[in-house]
Amino acid sequence: MKLDADLRFAVADLYASYAACIDDGRFEEWPELFTDDAWYRIVARENFDRDLPLSVVSLKGKPMMQDRVYGISSTIFHAPYYQRHIISTPALSMSDDAVVHAKTNYAVFRTKRDMDADIYNIGQYLDEIVSTEGGLKFRKKFCVYDNDIIPNSLIYPV
Amino acid sequence: MKLDADLRFAVADLYASYAACIDDGRFEEWPELFTDDAWYRIVARENFDRDLPLSVVSLKGKPMMQDRVYGISSTIFHAPYYQRHIISTPALSMSDDAVVHAKTNYAVFRTKRDMDADIYNIGQYLDEIVSTEGGLKFRKKFCVYDNDIIPNSLIYPV
Amino acid sequence: MKLDADLRFAVADLYASYAACIDDGRFEEWPELFTDDAWYRIVARENFDRDLPLSVVSLKGKPMMQDRVYGISSTIFHAPYYQRHIISTPALSMSDDAVVHAKTNYAVFRTKRDMDADIYNIGQYLDEIVSTEGGLKFRKKFCVYDNDIIPNSLIYPV
Repeated sequence: MKLDADLRFAVADLYASYAACIDDGRFEEWPELFTDDAWYRIVARENFDRDLPLSVVSLKGKPMMQDRVYGISSTIFHAPYYQRHIISTPALSMSDDAVVHAKTNYAVFRTKRDMDADIYNIGQYLDEIVSTEGGLKFRKKFCVYDNDIIPNSLIYPV
Repeated sequence: MKLDADLRFAVADLYASYAACIDDGRFEEWPELFTDDAWYRIVARENFDRDLPLSVVSLKGKPMMQDRVYGISSTIFHAPYYQRHIISTPALSMSDDAVVHAKTNYAVFRTKRDMDADIYNIGQYLDEIVSTEGGLKFRKKFCVYDNDIIPNSLIYPV
Repeated sequence: MKLDADLRFAVADLYASYAACIDDGRFEEWPELFTDDAWYRIVARENFDRDLPLSVVSLKGKPMMQDRVYGISSTIFHAPYYQRHIISTPALSMSDDAVVHAKTNYAVFRTKRDMDADIYNIGQYLDEIVSTEGGLKFRKKFCVYDNDIIPNSLIYPV
């Protein structure tokens, strides 16, 4: 695997699929964008920069992700809201073991019923992407957000 | 026509031209980004998801678009405002009839004179793009927005 | 130099590096993204459209940029804040003298400690990019912002 045009387009497609999956509310498809042993983590920049382990969400492996999705759709009591992701063009590099390291800024806007849209979560994705039989997947996805005050609570993946 | 690098870049250029045209306020050039029989529609996500026909704006064919532009510049009484589009990388697919189906998130920020910028319209473009003698054009452009409360009114295209 | 896929990717990488440099707070590396005689300017759209010279920031040459960075880190008294850039795909063209002219919308979000994120600066970059021995660099970077009211003051580059 080389960091050529095809790979760059495939990575762009992965991010577009990621955003569409969450923004469409198809949460049950969300774990399929990860490898089986992937690590998904949402962590405040303040903690991340100091190498502190505390995260808002930390899911290791697809079963934990599926459990979270089950929680979202079946057990967590919350007012529904729309999310909308804007993702910048990622900075890409590739390590010797054929892992794509992607770093990209994101903004998630939230709209609650009958209210204005607001800025929900702002930060950067620090991701590791690998090629699998099912196409590119995230092996690691860290969402490092700037706004350490989370409006209400964080229910859906960002 | 194949969904290769050249086509992807041409689509990216089309979106950049689209944003620049509106954000620069060159509204009279805006209909030129569409085919003669194109359908431009701005519709709330709530209605779109339920397949309801009600739209904030629905323009079928270039003459209706030109009429709208005439309205903007000559007949609608409104306080002027700036728009600024941020458009994510689109997810693209191609159907057998050589139509490019593009789906991409967008955020439109608005600035009124002597006021802070605010989030004006957030949503996704669901577009069909075709190749014409004058280059790529939109044959269909649906702007499906999340924030069903529109701040003031919607004068310019989004 | 031709406006081909390689150049487009290199430009995308330059913008990703630019955003990462500022958003990570690595300001001392920021002047290295410019040529020695580059012109960096932050100007309100209202002034820019009228061809008025007044700018919020206007730095000609790398020494002025380095001086600004020294000011940021050592002399300007200010409350620290995070910045986060979302940059749209640029519209590119190339002039006969091998200068890439790039025009792209940007949104900068700001987060102050223990506060919500807000829209800090919205506008477009009007840039000239040249190839140097050290890779692509900005020869000119104009940040033309829509929101003529700047929240608090503008300390860091946008």
